[in-house]
Amino acid sequence: MKIVIAPDSFKESLTALEVAEAIETGFKKVFPQAEYVKVPMADGGEGTVQSLVDATGGKLVECDVIAPLGNRVKSFFGLSGDGKTAIIEMAAASGLHLVPKDERNPLNTTSYGTGELIKCALALGVQHIILGIGGSATNDGGVGMLQALGIRFLNKQHQDIGYGGAQLAEIERIDTGALDNRLAQVHIEIACDVNNPLCGERGASAIFGPQKGATPQMVAQLDAALAHFAEIAQRDCGKNIKEQAGAGAAGGMGGGLLLLPNVVLKAGVQIVLDNLQLAESVREADLVITGEGRMDAQSILGKTPIGVGRTAKQFNKPVIAIVGCLREDYEVVYEHGIDAVFPIIRQLADLSEILQQGRENLTSSAQNIARLLALKDAF
Amino acid sequence: MKIVIAPDSFKESLTALEVAEAIETGFKKVFPQAEYVKVPMADGGEGTVQSLVDATGGKLVECDVIAPLGNRVKSFFGLSGDGKTAIIEMAAASGLHLVPKDERNPLNTTSYGTGELIKCALALGVQHIILGIGGSATNDGGVGMLQALGIRFLNKQHQDIGYGGAQLAEIERIDTGALDNRLAQVHIEIACDVNNPLCGERGASAIFGPQKGATPQMVAQLDAALAHFAEIAQRDCGKNIKEQAGAGAAGGMGGGLLLLPNVVLKAGVQIVLDNLQLAESVREADLVITGEGRMDAQSILGKTPIGVGRTAKQFNKPVIAIVGCLREDYEVVYEHGIDAVFPIIRQLADLSEILQQGRENLTSSAQNIARLLALKDAF
Repeated sequence: MKIVIAPDSFKESLTALEVAEAIETGFKKVFPQAEYVKVPMADGGEGTVQSLVDATGGKLVECDVIAPLGNRVKSFFGLSGDGKTAIIEMAAASGLHLVPKDERNPLNTTSYGTGELIKCALALGVQHIILGIGGSATNDGGVGMLQALGIRFLNKQHQDIGYGGAQLAEIERIDTGALDNRLAQVHIEIACDVNNPLCGERGASAIFGPQKGATPQMVAQLDAALAHFAEIAQRDCGKNIKEQAGAGAAGGMGGGLLLLPNVVLKAGVQIVLDNLQLAESVREADLVITGEGRMDAQSILGKTPIGVGRTAKQFNKPVIAIVGCLREDYEVVYEHGIDAVFPIIRQLADLSEILQQGRENLTSSAQNIARLLALKDAF
Repeated sequence: MKIVIAPDSFKESLTALEVAEAIETGFKKVFPQAEYVKVPMADGGEGTVQSLVDATGGKLVECDVIAPLGNRVKSFFGLSGDGKTAIIEMAAASGLHLVPKDERNPLNTTSYGTGELIKCALALGVQHIILGIGGSATNDGGVGMLQALGIRFLNKQHQDIGYGGAQLAEIERIDTGALDNRLAQVHIEIACDVNNPLCGERGASAIFGPQKGATPQMVAQLDAALAHFAEIAQRDCGKNIKEQAGAGAAGGMGGGLLLLPNVVLKAGVQIVLDNLQLAESVREADLVITGEGRMDAQSILGKTPIGVGRTAKQFNKPVIAIVGCLREDYEVVYEHGIDAVFPIIRQLADLSEILQQGRENLTSSAQNIARLLALKDAF
């Protein structure tokens, strides 16, 4: 019997690898002879670096970068076991958590540090970059990131513009001549789970600006600045980034990235599934187990268990989800590849206790699920 | 496929019948064609009357009785569907909840009302009484109950002694001549889950007195009074109630009851199992589902699911437990007839909310368990 265990992390409690290990521990008490394949998963958001590093036997690489407000911070990215793929989270260099609450102002914040992470990965000779762009503090259209990679954004005085979303209004010309030419040899996959355009009512500034500290006035200013940037990009680079679905992700980072060569925007979970070759593992499995911290109706929109479920159903495999908590509206997951779902909470406690009990509760649930499956001959 | 659903109640949330119905609802979503047999269970304690009434299609009978402090209160007992069996909870007439906290004093409290409930049942012509003796406010050796049934406890002045544990010290003679003679035709099963003797270090007063309001001095006084009662009982009735295991239950009620004819002390859950003829239902079942509000290592000591599990294992049937909460030490239940256990909590909430969500959470758990069982052909 071959069992594939492919869960997401349980946020604030366990990494995806730890979740997989806890489930394996529970199952092994009942089926010690089974073959277990652990595939720590992610959905392209938080935890993706750790999961892909764990899954490929890779490592974390540290790197000093410029934080959103211009100060330097320690950051990191993941390098796959074979050294060919870098897994980068934008939030590690340009995340909202790097900006004190009272200084959150996307007029000023830059994505420069994310460009530095990419540069650092290029220096290691990677052929492939996976970039997750959730959780950013910025609304600069990815201009800071592009600056770090060598593209120049010049103002009327032929000088480089400064950092932050407001500065985009000053762009008179974009000069890509000094773009890091190693990028021509590298394939970049962007994990992007929103389809917002760069500008307008559903654009980056209007939808994501406020959570980064933008007032209504700032939103209008930022939206105009992005529109101006898009116009110059169209003229100088020949790329229409204004209308592209997903261009509005991460403060316009989705749009700015389109100025680089060999870039593709994809659903985060699909990138993870493809890179971990889950289909290969699942093909020979008798049972697939997945999981996530919280399952609800939203889970069908690009969350890990559904990606795993759909992959498994290509091969008609049974799929069980084990979850931290389960919202009332979860049943729609049955239509998306999940056969049965089990929440792990065993008794009421404070959230902090529950998070601490994650491993034990997971193992207990897994053991009981396995015991139930073992009944099938009696039943 | 035949599925027997035999749970206990979920205290403060659902009756055993409601639990069984919620489980059935969840299973029916997956196995609509299966035959379901619902057997609402109990363990002889709280909820036993309701469960046996529900299981036999019986009814509740109201009856005014004397409360532990001598005031009159409305009480009740259950009558089975065939009218032959009365199910009485001592607590309904002589329970601790009937005494205000600041008046709890077992020197004064009487079990008289429980005797009145028995008398009321005799008036209805029952042939069989099931009496649960948990939760009492009394330490009177069941003397109050015996008084209600016609036994006279006389003092030096040849007068009847008064109510309460302290009065037992005054007994000079026990006169059973006026005992209600209908008792001779009736079989009484006492649900008794402790094996404490009447007196001494492990006796009624020492072990259960303090929770009923007894100070250390009162404990000594009560213990001496019970010992005195036992001595007179031995002399006048020829019964040794002092050493009998279980005589110390419910403030010595276990001992006092032994002065009645046709009385047997049994484990509560065994009485319920026997009376509901669970073995008959289970014999033809493909699957047995049980449950209780909280499962832990203590569950193996006479709790419902274990009684159900052991009965089912006589016929080698698979047994699944669905529980409100599951304590760390629960795994020992695997050795006592339970094959797999699933807690129902789906997300953190206040206890009051969790209790309200009981039905929905149970149905959800049952549905997912059924879905897992339905996988057995794919797996």
